[in-house]
Amino acid sequence: MTELSNLVAESVERLRRDKPLVQCLTNIVVANFTANVLLSAGAVPAMVDNPEESEGFASVADAVLVNTGTPYRETAEAMVAAARGAANSNTPWVLDPVGAGMPWRTQVALAALHVATPAVIRANASEVLTLAGTDASARGPEAGDAVEDALTSAAQLVRTHGCVVAISGPVDHILDADRHVTVSSGHEWMTRVTGVGCSLGALTAAFAGVQNDYLIAATSATALLCVAAERAAKRSVGPGAFAQALVDELFLVSPDEVGERGGLRDVTAEI
Amino acid sequence: MTELSNLVAESVERLRRDKPLVQCLTNIVVANFTANVLLSAGAVPAMVDNPEESEGFASVADAVLVNTGTPYRETAEAMVAAARGAANSNTPWVLDPVGAGMPWRTQVALAALHVATPAVIRANASEVLTLAGTDASARGPEAGDAVEDALTSAAQLVRTHGCVVAISGPVDHILDADRHVTVSSGHEWMTRVTGVGCSLGALTAAFAGVQNDYLIAATSATALLCVAAERAAKRSVGPGAFAQALVDELFLVSPDEVGERGGLRDVTAEI
Amino acid sequence: MTELSNLVAESVERLRRDKPLVQCLTNIVVANFTANVLLSAGAVPAMVDNPEESEGFASVADAVLVNTGTPYRETAEAMVAAARGAANSNTPWVLDPVGAGMPWRTQVALAALHVATPAVIRANASEVLTLAGTDASARGPEAGDAVEDALTSAAQLVRTHGCVVAISGPVDHILDADRHVTVSSGHEWMTRVTGVGCSLGALTAAFAGVQNDYLIAATSATALLCVAAERAAKRSVGPGAFAQALVDELFLVSPDEVGERGGLRDVTAEI
Repeated sequence: MTELSNLVAESVERLRRDKPLVQCLTNIVVANFTANVLLSAGAVPAMVDNPEESEGFASVADAVLVNTGTPYRETAEAMVAAARGAANSNTPWVLDPVGAGMPWRTQVALAALHVATPAVIRANASEVLTLAGTDASARGPEAGDAVEDALTSAAQLVRTHGCVVAISGPVDHILDADRHVTVSSGHEWMTRVTGVGCSLGALTAAFAGVQNDYLIAATSATALLCVAAERAAKRSVGPGAFAQALVDELFLVSPDEVGERGGLRDVTAEI
Repeated sequence: MTELSNLVAESVERLRRDKPLVQCLTNIVVANFTANVLLSAGAVPAMVDNPEESEGFASVADAVLVNTGTPYRETAEAMVAAARGAANSNTPWVLDPVGAGMPWRTQVALAALHVATPAVIRANASEVLTLAGTDASARGPEAGDAVEDALTSAAQLVRTHGCVVAISGPVDHILDADRHVTVSSGHEWMTRVTGVGCSLGALTAAFAGVQNDYLIAATSATALLCVAAERAAKRSVGPGAFAQALVDELFLVSPDEVGERGGLRDVTAEI
Repeated sequence: MTELSNLVAESVERLRRDKPLVQCLTNIVVANFTANVLLSAGAVPAMVDNPEESEGFASVADAVLVNTGTPYRETAEAMVAAARGAANSNTPWVLDPVGAGMPWRTQVALAALHVATPAVIRANASEVLTLAGTDASARGPEAGDAVEDALTSAAQLVRTHGCVVAISGPVDHILDADRHVTVSSGHEWMTRVTGVGCSLGALTAAFAGVQNDYLIAATSATALLCVAAERAAKRSVGPGAFAQALVDELFLVSPDEVGERGGLRDVTAEI
């Protein structure tokens, strides 16, 4: 195994051993699936997403996820408060700016970024383009910009916010100021089940709770989900069976297999 | 195959090819299942249900679903705005007035109907009776009025709103000003899984996004769901397995099988 | 079978025959799973959780569930109103104070208790300690206090509120002023799927709708869920398969098996 594979395998082991408490502020569509993904992977979800409790709970949690999939006035307020609470207690937090490009949630995502530096921004290409101020296509959470077209914008976000940026797509790209990694495992059915992208955001937060090299945390989350997805697809007739098998495989897959079969590549020197 | 079967089979093909973007304003119980049903059938869900974005997004979407299952002040506001946005951009929208008969959601459904004519009202018998101003029993979303008792009220809604009305039950009835179709496929377990009715509303919206004969769109949605349900029930030991298999079968079933085995009947001349 | 086993088996039969209408005010994470658990067990869920309708609907429902998992201003208001409506119409209601210990939801739970006496408080040990005014650990919904440490606090809640208290854990304890029952069936994967505890609250409400000896209602709910879980675990490779199989088994298990294999014990005389 390469050094990268070893670091990823080790992180998966650590996640299962340390069972990080992950505060999730996420959307009504994926809240259940996200919690089950976290539990199956070994983490402990806590969906504390109201403005009375979110800031305080961020100091108790090991990591915080802010996902803008269905922002309402009250949960949006809670998201910004959670980011503030995370910053004040040095709890790592992950921004998953679902649907950025639509006006209200873009504003919420930028407000959260304004109060606190996240460990990782995890997004698709269109969302990265939007956050960096570049025009993206406007089909909402299902926008279809290519990952490769967002790399310059991602590098800009890295510089502006001093955080890791992870862009998901057929090949995932994860970068910080000095390094650039790609993950080329996964399965096309990951786009036929709602919340797979969102659960990657949640897993990224979970890993950030046990691994303070956040580039490795984001890479580990991506590899774990993608290898589990490959295993799940092999024994599924369709997307319904796949969704359930994916949860199983997050529980069953070994850390070494995640490291070895994750399709991990350090491309820092190449790009 | 009859002409009706052919039209339905063709619509299923078109759904899979055109992948309509369906904006869903729905309830917290079924949001996940609805999104998975749409993805599996070939559509692209976008749960944009806040008042800041719902009106504008309705002009980007290919179809809009308004489902009143768990209306809150903010999402109710977003529902009326989405209906207005749909009307202004000629995007077809479907009203699924879940639980109509309870005061608040009845008011929301009527407010949405007031600002815009839907392509289809999809409802159970009690909800149809309520919207038409007839007394219905009052057990909420699980009201037990018979489909046949709601046909007169349905015809009245067709006249008042100039839209298609689809009533679901053991036999589904779908009617507009000139035509009346029944769909007699399906399985009793469709009532043992939450959100099957709601996902029919979502599929109806998806078909309305690719088929502008809305009676055929509603018929296609009903037949697709019912035939998938029959296939799913055959290989399921209980409602848990059935829910997952149903999602699989929406992906697996062929357009021709939907047309042939949908139990479709044009009863315009008979009634 | 002991008398306790017989009473439990009979209650399961009655649930399936009478199909109680259960109004649920619950959280965004488990709403779907809760509804499916209720449907599979034979009850009829109605998620009426807005302040305009919740009080009135409580007089139509056979039982009401108040679960504080993700309280927002509007749903919290609806929860207190539902408790009031339940009290006014003698509808039994169950409090599941998820995450009590966090400030806002503790306040909501206490406000609901202030307006109406519940049939059952169903909670984990930390939540019981909090409601009784004892210090609990503060890891939110996943607090880790031991059931046995909460028995004194539970007895105090029984005296203060005149209701049944059910504490879930590896062994569940259910007590009222005169009796104390333990349930020692179940499976460790019940903690690897989100919402299993919450669905126990919902089943407790369903049983309270058909069995007015609320200690037996709570015991029946616990035994049904635990025996179904044991059966489900036997045929599952991981938590994803288990969640689905659990829903199946609630539908498939016989009333006698629930009574016989529930691990029921009347420990009134021993403690």
